[in-house]
Amino acid sequence: MLTLYYMPGTCALASHIALAEAGAEYELKRVDFGKSEQRAPAYLAINPKGRVPALATPRGILTETPAMLAFIAQSHPKAALAPIDDPFAFAEVQAFNSYLCSTVHVAHAHRMRGARWVDAADEAAINAMKKKVPESVGQCFTLIEESMLRGPWVMGERYSIADPYLFTLAQWMEADSLDPKRFPRVLDHRNRMGERPAVKRALKEEGR
Amino acid sequence: MLTLYYMPGTCALASHIALAEAGAEYELKRVDFGKSEQRAPAYLAINPKGRVPALATPRGILTETPAMLAFIAQSHPKAALAPIDDPFAFAEVQAFNSYLCSTVHVAHAHRMRGARWVDAADEAAINAMKKKVPESVGQCFTLIEESMLRGPWVMGERYSIADPYLFTLAQWMEADSLDPKRFPRVLDHRNRMGERPAVKRALKEEGR
Repeated sequence: MLTLYYMPGTCALASHIALAEAGAEYELKRVDFGKSEQRAPAYLAINPKGRVPALATPRGILTETPAMLAFIAQSHPKAALAPIDDPFAFAEVQAFNSYLCSTVHVAHAHRMRGARWVDAADEAAINAMKKKVPESVGQCFTLIEESMLRGPWVMGERYSIADPYLFTLAQWMEADSLDPKRFPRVLDHRNRMGERPAVKRALKEEGR
Repeated sequence: MLTLYYMPGTCALASHIALAEAGAEYELKRVDFGKSEQRAPAYLAINPKGRVPALATPRGILTETPAMLAFIAQSHPKAALAPIDDPFAFAEVQAFNSYLCSTVHVAHAHRMRGARWVDAADEAAINAMKKKVPESVGQCFTLIEESMLRGPWVMGERYSIADPYLFTLAQWMEADSLDPKRFPRVLDHRNRMGERPAVKRALKEEGR
């Protein structure tokens, strides 16, 4: 049994969808950000970073979405969620996911989590960060639209762990003041993802 | 033959060391940031992100340090640079590397690359970011020191692709106004890494 620690609206959704796609046995534990549970001692004992997602496994805790997604794919080979026997093709999947975590998600986080990178009391700097988000996240999705998303799935004909991760981050476009119509291929991907049973199940389980 | 596109002083060093540790056949191509070669059409054709590192392989280009490191480990299994047959242990390595790319490197980048996240002309916001770097990067290294670095290597007794990546980012502490003595276990790791022939070779090949 695997236990996913998540909060609705976060990138934990990517791993949640992957668990459903994999046919994994899993349970969910909601970490209530409204009560700052992610910074409470009980949760810090699970993930000292104070963030979601985290995945409790029989061998221990895993964190970081790209690592969790690769683990889900490698430990459920029958689901064929990544080209796990081909180091080059697997690295291409990982490169896509690494770009999402280190560049796209980070650009987005400057809208709500600016206090990670400037003094929380510096309102002018916090607002300067918010103002740039449509441009910085927009540049990311332009690159994905034009150079990275092969179609119909991220890696081409084969669905992979890159797909739920892109779907998750693409859900934030409107909140980041981006018009999804600027990115028709990403929007088409998002819409097709929304039709998958695993995606419907994960969204329902998160109460969305 | 593999070709690593790099610039001295960047995180490309992690993949460079891993190539040397793996006994890979590789050549180096320096991308001159002083001449903005990373944004010139010739390099954008290799990596549309306009960043280093990139790794040209017989199958195509790979980018993103965690993906490149995993590829080097998986395609050179005799070098035993990652527990590639154990999905959980492999995910632990990848979680460490994902934290370095998405949190540690990102915190550090706010000192020199603030224009990614605010208007380049907003000097006050650029300076507010710079000012926070010792605190934000310091929090990262505190977590690594206290909770993540098992010792003697990142993952314990077995050297892995997490080690050259930590070594690379730990080299930036002084420039980020952090006293390495605050992190004695990270400093010890850095010093022991510096004794490895592959590390000496990579540093020498980068002219450092």
